[in-house]
Amino acid sequence: MAIKAKVGLVGATGYTGLELLRILAGHPDMELVRATSRSEAGKRLGELHPLVEGFALADVAICEPDYDDLASACDLVFLAVPHKTAMEAAGLLRARDVKVVDLSADFRLRDKAVYEAWYGCEHVQPGLLSEAVYGLVELYREQVRGAGLVANPGCYPTSILLGCAPALRLGLISPEGLVADSKSGATGAGANAGPGNIFCGVYDNFRAYNLGKHRHTPEIEQELSILAGRDVVVSFSPHLLPINRGILSTIYATMAKPLDADNVVEAYRDFYRNDPWVRVLPAGSLPEVRNVRGTMFCDIGLVVDPRTNRLIIVSAIDNLCRGASGQAVANANLMLGLDEAAGLRLPPLAP
Amino acid sequence: MAIKAKVGLVGATGYTGLELLRILAGHPDMELVRATSRSEAGKRLGELHPLVEGFALADVAICEPDYDDLASACDLVFLAVPHKTAMEAAGLLRARDVKVVDLSADFRLRDKAVYEAWYGCEHVQPGLLSEAVYGLVELYREQVRGAGLVANPGCYPTSILLGCAPALRLGLISPEGLVADSKSGATGAGANAGPGNIFCGVYDNFRAYNLGKHRHTPEIEQELSILAGRDVVVSFSPHLLPINRGILSTIYATMAKPLDADNVVEAYRDFYRNDPWVRVLPAGSLPEVRNVRGTMFCDIGLVVDPRTNRLIIVSAIDNLCRGASGQAVANANLMLGLDEAAGLRLPPLAP
Amino acid sequence: MAIKAKVGLVGATGYTGLELLRILAGHPDMELVRATSRSEAGKRLGELHPLVEGFALADVAICEPDYDDLASACDLVFLAVPHKTAMEAAGLLRARDVKVVDLSADFRLRDKAVYEAWYGCEHVQPGLLSEAVYGLVELYREQVRGAGLVANPGCYPTSILLGCAPALRLGLISPEGLVADSKSGATGAGANAGPGNIFCGVYDNFRAYNLGKHRHTPEIEQELSILAGRDVVVSFSPHLLPINRGILSTIYATMAKPLDADNVVEAYRDFYRNDPWVRVLPAGSLPEVRNVRGTMFCDIGLVVDPRTNRLIIVSAIDNLCRGASGQAVANANLMLGLDEAAGLRLPPLAP
Amino acid sequence: MAIKAKVGLVGATGYTGLELLRILAGHPDMELVRATSRSEAGKRLGELHPLVEGFALADVAICEPDYDDLASACDLVFLAVPHKTAMEAAGLLRARDVKVVDLSADFRLRDKAVYEAWYGCEHVQPGLLSEAVYGLVELYREQVRGAGLVANPGCYPTSILLGCAPALRLGLISPEGLVADSKSGATGAGANAGPGNIFCGVYDNFRAYNLGKHRHTPEIEQELSILAGRDVVVSFSPHLLPINRGILSTIYATMAKPLDADNVVEAYRDFYRNDPWVRVLPAGSLPEVRNVRGTMFCDIGLVVDPRTNRLIIVSAIDNLCRGASGQAVANANLMLGLDEAAGLRLPPLAP
Repeated sequence: MAIKAKVGLVGATGYTGLELLRILAGHPDMELVRATSRSEAGKRLGELHPLVEGFALADVAICEPDYDDLASACDLVFLAVPHKTAMEAAGLLRARDVKVVDLSADFRLRDKAVYEAWYGCEHVQPGLLSEAVYGLVELYREQVRGAGLVANPGCYPTSILLGCAPALRLGLISPEGLVADSKSGATGAGANAGPGNIFCGVYDNFRAYNLGKHRHTPEIEQELSILAGRDVVVSFSPHLLPINRGILSTIYATMAKPLDADNVVEAYRDFYRNDPWVRVLPAGSLPEVRNVRGTMFCDIGLVVDPRTNRLIIVSAIDNLCRGASGQAVANANLMLGLDEAAGLRLPPLAP
Repeated sequence: MAIKAKVGLVGATGYTGLELLRILAGHPDMELVRATSRSEAGKRLGELHPLVEGFALADVAICEPDYDDLASACDLVFLAVPHKTAMEAAGLLRARDVKVVDLSADFRLRDKAVYEAWYGCEHVQPGLLSEAVYGLVELYREQVRGAGLVANPGCYPTSILLGCAPALRLGLISPEGLVADSKSGATGAGANAGPGNIFCGVYDNFRAYNLGKHRHTPEIEQELSILAGRDVVVSFSPHLLPINRGILSTIYATMAKPLDADNVVEAYRDFYRNDPWVRVLPAGSLPEVRNVRGTMFCDIGLVVDPRTNRLIIVSAIDNLCRGASGQAVANANLMLGLDEAAGLRLPPLAP
Repeated sequence: MAIKAKVGLVGATGYTGLELLRILAGHPDMELVRATSRSEAGKRLGELHPLVEGFALADVAICEPDYDDLASACDLVFLAVPHKTAMEAAGLLRARDVKVVDLSADFRLRDKAVYEAWYGCEHVQPGLLSEAVYGLVELYREQVRGAGLVANPGCYPTSILLGCAPALRLGLISPEGLVADSKSGATGAGANAGPGNIFCGVYDNFRAYNLGKHRHTPEIEQELSILAGRDVVVSFSPHLLPINRGILSTIYATMAKPLDADNVVEAYRDFYRNDPWVRVLPAGSLPEVRNVRGTMFCDIGLVVDPRTNRLIIVSAIDNLCRGASGQAVANANLMLGLDEAAGLRLPPLAP
Repeated sequence: MAIKAKVGLVGATGYTGLELLRILAGHPDMELVRATSRSEAGKRLGELHPLVEGFALADVAICEPDYDDLASACDLVFLAVPHKTAMEAAGLLRARDVKVVDLSADFRLRDKAVYEAWYGCEHVQPGLLSEAVYGLVELYREQVRGAGLVANPGCYPTSILLGCAPALRLGLISPEGLVADSKSGATGAGANAGPGNIFCGVYDNFRAYNLGKHRHTPEIEQELSILAGRDVVVSFSPHLLPINRGILSTIYATMAKPLDADNVVEAYRDFYRNDPWVRVLPAGSLPEVRNVRGTMFCDIGLVVDPRTNRLIIVSAIDNLCRGASGQAVANANLMLGLDEAAGLRLPPLAP
């Protein structure tokens, strides 16, 4: 039996932390050796999250974050804490030369000024901004392999970027006038209870929120611009679905030239030919969030609409797994020299 | 006590029929005297739908449709049967001079050829097409008053047309490049069980369907074109929400000139100043489907997004009440000379 | 037009307060003239609860509770505040001779010591305990008519007492060994967000809670004992359903003698022959919570099981309407000399 | 790499078939080599169930059942077809000496007459009844190891038997007067759409069904009687939860003697000390179905209620995994000499 890589988790209480535990519980080549939480220190992980009882990591003791200890015990640390807190933790860990996958937004934007404008706070680790690699493996696999710090992509951006990348890179669509109408399950709002995520306010309900001002907008535009080779502006509209997990994005783009549905499918499949987690559906099929639940898959459906001269792209992911913790493990796998898919060959749970 | 108008229901088994019963159960000026269903004839309504037991109409006997009998017993008949069947029933009833509100799509499209192209069957009552009034009361109130046959609008069109009407009529937006991304609860798929609406296929799931080819498209475009005074083409994308009731449409339009959010709200409120069921939310607020559940309300939120030069319109209705049976009762009220809101002063049921 | 009774609401922010607004919005003979909330004073009701916009009561200004003002403005006041707070408010209002319907538990238990044991706090209004009438109209209609203070029954007790009353009163079942396994929607947990009612903790989940120690237990036992004419002890087990509204109680009782299903149905129907809101289903039919949603109905199904010598009683109510605010309005109607059903002829909203 | 065991699946279209695919997709020691369905023959599995695309078994061609072919190709066959059909298939396969795990009810009841009374059809394989082993591994592990035919337990019985086994075997409770009030998600009703499982009839709803006459009753009583060493009769009441997966059973038993909660927990833990999938919760904790979703776990909570002299046992399982296909794989593992837990170390998916 090979020696497992030792990893730590800073922030054990939230949904992304919990989802990491789910994945690490079955990971053949990684061992969780530290888990921190200021509010829950002293408990076993199994006490905090009874659903992991019966797995070895349930016995890990939750402790307060101690960066010297983390650095000496771990090959890599996952940060599953809010932005701003993540920035500081990343600085402390990188100074101690530990690899870091940050699940927050703190290192996703390459431009400090853009970060500060959208997040309303100073970025105190500008030096790390240039070191950080944007961890969307389909686009940045090689850079992730050598990275010390990976900025794990946001959930909405993951769904939109995987949906648009081939069409933009191959010039199938115009970069003008893009609309991304996205719908997300409630885990995206985090595990802190409040009026916005009380059961009776979400169940049997549906609403849009933060139209025109969601913080994932600059992240989406940054990466779409790189793909298009020019500045891209997008109407990004998030909505809250009355379900736990899943994002479905419906993306409207003007065709750059007349397209044929089967050819578009073929072009997408070719673009993702080495990517095990993108499933491009046959023309005429559309994705459903249940088909990706609990997995790393991004399912993509493509509709050519000559009446409106639009290509409509529909992409579906699990926001917690593919859009957060699973993607973080894929990045960690690459950073640690492991098989990219180790621990992530997860079939969908449906129904 | 005034004499009540006598009404009949052709098609008692579906969800729109059931919703009509809910509304008629509390209507002060209408009495249901006939209810028909070929499959359930012989039962009492309360036997078919136990939830109406305790109301007078539960004792109405379901019978097979007999048009002479309907004509002699009823001042007005609601048709809650599938398209094609409705066409025939409407012909038989209009020949007997009974007023008709048709909840199907058979008389919504003014152009016979467009109907036949989208619905794939011949329209055998072309003469009634010109007689029929499109029953969106905010736009056609006066015509409905004098009508013998009202085509009750579709659920998706209701949400989109009420959302766009002021902006198009007032020239706030360009009629080019409209996108309507709509999400509907599962009652919209009807009461016949099948693989598409089995519980475990809809619950905890979300998907798009019929992109670029939903039959409500020509209805939406017909009315938007009238509002704009020129041909309008729209990307209309329906999605299936894992809830029972409610439609939320997110509509993307290019601003015709720079707009101010408060002014747009003001213009909308002025446009709908005599319409009790349109609630235009203050700038910064967005609608939720729960706030209109069980009611005639259409809640509209307006977002001016200078970054993308778009006006984003979000509208929410209850697809079964406002988008079908409630709207049918409003039309019937007008046709019978009753108070338009009789029986329809229904507060939302939430949570 | 007759003059309407003037009523006040102390506690406008919770779900029972909101449900009262829904009912009062359509009440023909009651006018809401005061609404209080310490945290939301200064807002209009429509601002706090946008779903009531469009109804006259949306314009009522929320104010801090002022008992002199309430007493001079109102014929009757509803208390929709937590227990303990309600006790004090009731004392202040009764001292000013205003009629009170208290939706909390403060006046439901006739024995001060039992209250203090289960609620863990002193009862500071023992004098009012004997004045208070338990407002289950099917059992105490006449006493409610003359009452100054009505203790509105708890939601679980309402479902269980209506289910058991005929069988106990008529001696069909033994009062020994009763089990009441109850399942409630999440509105029962109130509108304050917390770890117990966050969406992702309730959705797609199911659990029991407070087994053997729920505070509704002594209320249930008090009334069952009165019905049986001897002390009754019950296993009462609440469970949390992943829905908004509705309680279904499955009650297991030993038959006192061999019973026939149709005869039991007949006996129940006879017992409730003057009660418009109890619907006893035919033998072989079982209730569903959707059939009572938004209404005052209690649907009861009865199963005679000779194999186990048990009568199984299944009852369904809407916990917010029948189990709280609707029942409160029924009590208020009686106290004010109005038609008991005024404002409460509400058909179920389903689906 | 060791040679994998070759298995077949008869009945690929239902939910238990699909759940088997989910588990087999990640099973290290089993390979699916055949999948049959009369209605879907000719398709690839991935075409029928797009959610398994990306896994090797997606390429298995669905064929019509051919028992000679199944016998020559497979070491073991899973039967995921309705009762009666399963009986015949089992006969054909056992005659060809293939090991069989039958997920239907056809071989669970030891007494042919009891089977015929509850299932209303003749049992045409009485010889196999005595051969069949009841595949609840915690109770019959050794017998399963040597078995040629395993009757996979029903979902409700699994939850109730695991909950009661220690208490009955150890004499903590009386076998008289047991009540099992069980609540199941909708996957238990199967994948055939009908009025009983249409989305809008289940969502936001809750109901009891088949009270006193559910076909799992004799299966539960057969095994409880073996555990108690005497005849046991139980009130078993199934209910339909508006969720996909999960069964929670609340079981009411009279204590045989005064019990202490911690001691009962200890006795249960000792009883299940060699069973990795039973998690006995600490006194004061209660199970939730979300904590077992997608897994083999049975979580058990225990409440000692001296007021009513009852032990209340609450058990939670995933009806599709633990209650059907996962349990089938555990049995197959034992029958094939593999690690009992191979392919089944699945952490719960929550939220």
